[in-house]
Amino acid sequence: MSEIEVTLPDGSVLSVPEGSTVEDVAYEIGPGLGSDTVAGVVDGDLVDKATPVHDGADLVIVTDGSEEYLRVLRHSAAHVFAQALLRLHPDAKLTIGPSTDDGFYYDVTNVDLDREDLDDIEEEMADIVAEDYDIERFERSREEAFDVYEDNPYKQDILETEAADEDPVSFYRQAEFEDLCQGPHVESTGEIGAFKLLNISSAYWRGDEENDQLTRVYGTAFEEEGDLADFLEMREEAAERDHRKIGKEMDLFSIAKDTGPGLPLYHPNGKRILDELADYAKDLNLDAGYDPVETPHLFRTELWKKSGHYDNYVDDMFLLDVNDEEYGLKPMNCPGHATIFDQHAWSYRDLPVRYFEDGKVYRKEQRGELSGLSRVWSFTIDDGHLFVRPDQIEAEINLIIDNILTVFETFDLDADVALATRPEKSVGSDEIWEQAESQLRAVLDDGDIDYDVEEGDGAFYGPKIDFGFEDALGRKWDGPTVQLDFNMPERFDLTYTGEDNEEHRPVMIHRALYGSYERFFMVLVEHFKGKFPLWLAPEQVRILPVSDDNVEYAESVAAELGDFRVEVEDRDMTVGRKIRAAHDDRVPYMLIVGGNEESAGTVSVRDRKERESNDVELEAFRRHLEAERAEKRTEPDFVDEA
Amino acid sequence: MSEIEVTLPDGSVLSVPEGSTVEDVAYEIGPGLGSDTVAGVVDGDLVDKATPVHDGADLVIVTDGSEEYLRVLRHSAAHVFAQALLRLHPDAKLTIGPSTDDGFYYDVTNVDLDREDLDDIEEEMADIVAEDYDIERFERSREEAFDVYEDNPYKQDILETEAADEDPVSFYRQAEFEDLCQGPHVESTGEIGAFKLLNISSAYWRGDEENDQLTRVYGTAFEEEGDLADFLEMREEAAERDHRKIGKEMDLFSIAKDTGPGLPLYHPNGKRILDELADYAKDLNLDAGYDPVETPHLFRTELWKKSGHYDNYVDDMFLLDVNDEEYGLKPMNCPGHATIFDQHAWSYRDLPVRYFEDGKVYRKEQRGELSGLSRVWSFTIDDGHLFVRPDQIEAEINLIIDNILTVFETFDLDADVALATRPEKSVGSDEIWEQAESQLRAVLDDGDIDYDVEEGDGAFYGPKIDFGFEDALGRKWDGPTVQLDFNMPERFDLTYTGEDNEEHRPVMIHRALYGSYERFFMVLVEHFKGKFPLWLAPEQVRILPVSDDNVEYAESVAAELGDFRVEVEDRDMTVGRKIRAAHDDRVPYMLIVGGNEESAGTVSVRDRKERESNDVELEAFRRHLEAERAEKRTEPDFVDEA
Repeated sequence: MSEIEVTLPDGSVLSVPEGSTVEDVAYEIGPGLGSDTVAGVVDGDLVDKATPVHDGADLVIVTDGSEEYLRVLRHSAAHVFAQALLRLHPDAKLTIGPSTDDGFYYDVTNVDLDREDLDDIEEEMADIVAEDYDIERFERSREEAFDVYEDNPYKQDILETEAADEDPVSFYRQAEFEDLCQGPHVESTGEIGAFKLLNISSAYWRGDEENDQLTRVYGTAFEEEGDLADFLEMREEAAERDHRKIGKEMDLFSIAKDTGPGLPLYHPNGKRILDELADYAKDLNLDAGYDPVETPHLFRTELWKKSGHYDNYVDDMFLLDVNDEEYGLKPMNCPGHATIFDQHAWSYRDLPVRYFEDGKVYRKEQRGELSGLSRVWSFTIDDGHLFVRPDQIEAEINLIIDNILTVFETFDLDADVALATRPEKSVGSDEIWEQAESQLRAVLDDGDIDYDVEEGDGAFYGPKIDFGFEDALGRKWDGPTVQLDFNMPERFDLTYTGEDNEEHRPVMIHRALYGSYERFFMVLVEHFKGKFPLWLAPEQVRILPVSDDNVEYAESVAAELGDFRVEVEDRDMTVGRKIRAAHDDRVPYMLIVGGNEESAGTVSVRDRKERESNDVELEAFRRHLEAERAEKRTEPDFVDEA
Repeated sequence: MSEIEVTLPDGSVLSVPEGSTVEDVAYEIGPGLGSDTVAGVVDGDLVDKATPVHDGADLVIVTDGSEEYLRVLRHSAAHVFAQALLRLHPDAKLTIGPSTDDGFYYDVTNVDLDREDLDDIEEEMADIVAEDYDIERFERSREEAFDVYEDNPYKQDILETEAADEDPVSFYRQAEFEDLCQGPHVESTGEIGAFKLLNISSAYWRGDEENDQLTRVYGTAFEEEGDLADFLEMREEAAERDHRKIGKEMDLFSIAKDTGPGLPLYHPNGKRILDELADYAKDLNLDAGYDPVETPHLFRTELWKKSGHYDNYVDDMFLLDVNDEEYGLKPMNCPGHATIFDQHAWSYRDLPVRYFEDGKVYRKEQRGELSGLSRVWSFTIDDGHLFVRPDQIEAEINLIIDNILTVFETFDLDADVALATRPEKSVGSDEIWEQAESQLRAVLDDGDIDYDVEEGDGAFYGPKIDFGFEDALGRKWDGPTVQLDFNMPERFDLTYTGEDNEEHRPVMIHRALYGSYERFFMVLVEHFKGKFPLWLAPEQVRILPVSDDNVEYAESVAAELGDFRVEVEDRDMTVGRKIRAAHDDRVPYMLIVGGNEESAGTVSVRDRKERESNDVELEAFRRHLEAERAEKRTEPDFVDEA
């Protein structure tokens, strides 16, 4: 019997007899691992432990407690859901039911479900788990499979597409329930320690709006009840923080789905925050020696061909025809900045040249992938491009990272840093890549910055450092980046005259402090839960007159705070309701003014953390406000100090 | 013989015998006028005085000294040019040669011309004028006309298009020269008191790039030598001020014609000025109670259909296909702002609601019409839209006009104001139009503002006030406008709840303080001749160390002025050259620092008006700078005060 070779995650190569399954390989490694094996990952695909491995396979053995095991468990939970559904609604038809990053779903049809139905199904699922049925793989001939699904066009469709080459066809079974399925699954329904059905939505068969509409039931499952409880708590907190929900409550933005999906409209409250963010970035940029520029949103395709975007990005670009010539909305700002750089003759003494622009870019996501402000069609990058001499790279990267870390600190966000190195397909000499990567490493090491190395994850034009935002819930979001680029200067034939009087090629650095304003805005809304630091808050102070008699005094107080965003609450309601309304609107400070305050010429200060301080001199409060704003403190702290 | 009626400019109606010519009507009015008549304007078209008038015609009698006479004279000058050309270059072919607002041109072919040739042609023209040939109209049959032009496809083309219905065909003749022409002309070549050929460019037949390329010779003509001299002086001054020339000299902007015609790129110096303008408009807007918003640049066509832009503007719109749906880049910001307003329930107490946005809009001009920053494809409007109750219109318009006049004052520009009233095609009741127009009139009258009334020139949705900019040379440019709009609130079904608890329709007001940033930027460059007020100047102060020894001191001076845009001139050149370079760059202030200044801790101040003040305490200068900037003074005036 001949041998085959498989590669394990640690890079070691194992010879096993041809025909060995995943489980066989695990036993080969050790009997303990063999008996713990629940599935395998072969060349990146999760498979049943009974699957034979091929020569040259990359193999990961899946045991319980791992992330892959959780995916298997959730897939089994989807089957348990389907079994319970059919017990209670025998006419329902199943389509597909995969696991996801945080649970599973099953798309079904021919059944009407509401939350109460889900509760009943959950009870039935609990019975099925308690019964601890074995989950077994078995096979049918294609003919038999089609017979089984003669009333289910969706399963037939799967047999004709994904399973077109299979004969016999793989099925899984637990008690009376069976499903066309590649697996893998846990061994029995009792392994599902905790589960919950989460919600119902609609979906289209194959995700295509032209196809039948189906009912999608979302659920999740864990090994332990405790993990499920943590998950549900986190989920509730995330829902409370959802930027779409808070965006509506605080009247920050809207998206006109009918006339502009993926194209947000910023209302006054949102635009005020955006403007503060833009002013802050501008201050940081001007202080760091950047020059402001502004470039068009539309260029003839020639530019995108020159820059390489046409080859690499055309599917994501918005193209249009103008007088029989093709134009594209800009997907990136770099070619525009390179065009400006190219208008001058530069000397080595002029470098580095640093341009920045809040540049709106356009990238065509699929409509189904658009979501709030996190996936949009047009977004604004606080984009900077530097043109530097090779000997300036390290100092410039240092300066950029300083600025980026300042931003993280200002917003009380943690940084998740990764160095992405040379990918297989790339331009530039080995020497220049090695130099660039070692410069980036040196900056990170010298700055005592923790980072992961993502081998081969750099851009084709150069290595980069990605800074992910980690928010108050520990969630991670794409954030700023610093990218070295040896390619664009070549394509645009950019040059400067060196001290040697020869023409030299500058290196380009792409960088952003926020990344996309839209995503950063979303991160901030969710991170602060709408309770923005004073300097960002769309309304900074609200003045609450106790009665109509105090409105005039309230307005004089507002006038003295003229430099701040102040409103007087003059609607006809009790002070209690006025306070609740201000809390709902997340206003950092309320100033309550009644007869006492008016005659003493003072105010009562209440902050959104429900702390109060009475008989406050307005001037002292104003001075505090100015300091709190100037220092960009994240929480109102007048009452701390008072 | 039956009578016909013609209407004169004063509105009076005159009965004249059928068949009367323009000249006959003039004699009917009075013999003096009859003998002075050189042409007529019938229903807006300039015609020969021998042209018969039709019943119901609007007639203007043209006599010398009038603007129309100048057009006639310049048209005759074009013929004189053509006559001289053919005398010197008998093989040249004529195409068309009309008068323009400030002269004439003739497009010719089959001849190579340079400036020296123009000088020779000018000499020949002078002879023709001195000969004082009679200019006479005569006619040929169509057949004869085609025979005359058997070698000239352009004149044949005219015979087949513009003159397709003419038989016989109108010609004009002077001495040996004749030309296919509708006229009118002056009586003899001697009437052309002064003329000049200005330059040569290329043009396409019928203005279409697909057609033959022709040579265009521009010239101008006047009744008097003095007028020509004034014109040439003004023209030279205008060329000196041309924003494209200054834009290049001061490195303000560029337009990448190949990849983005009509799509300007702002370089750092230009963007600094734009940013100052935007900050100023924002300050004015926030002070006036406007709320900032931001709207997408792209909307599905549904929005443009709803707003009416699709019907009225589609030819000027940039359209694109996204996943088989039609989208348009926004040609105006109003529908986006109406969409935001429409997201809320409003009470009468909430109005007026005032939104502003520096909104980029896209309008597709023909490529041949694009010119510098004055005609572009995409420009940014400092756009404001107000949603007001009818009883608030007057107060709001007053506030807007105050702001607009503040802008004129700040930039030292004169205002050319016009009230444009209801056009024939319009929406809305007579009552509401009368009310709106009388409100606009009242505001202008109460404000003691001089204005012209342009009857019927309002928008179809409401009357408007246009504020033209009049620059340092007395040239007029389109500027801010205030427009009442009863139409868009209807189309978007915008409402607010009145005091009566019923739904009411708000009125929209469209307004801008600058109009388009691009055009305003152009006006400012030409108005100030690049010598921007301190607050706008891209570089505000340049420090000139007398020798290398003083560079360090120069840098310490720069650091003390950190809040300003300051550069240290550390290139290796003499102080004299440094001063010239700073003058060329139009920097408001130079600080010259040598050994004396360094040891005394002072600076020598020189302004761009070449005035100097020595032994200046830096702190005194800094305080002056701050005041000059804060008050937005248009000229450096430290030396005045010092």
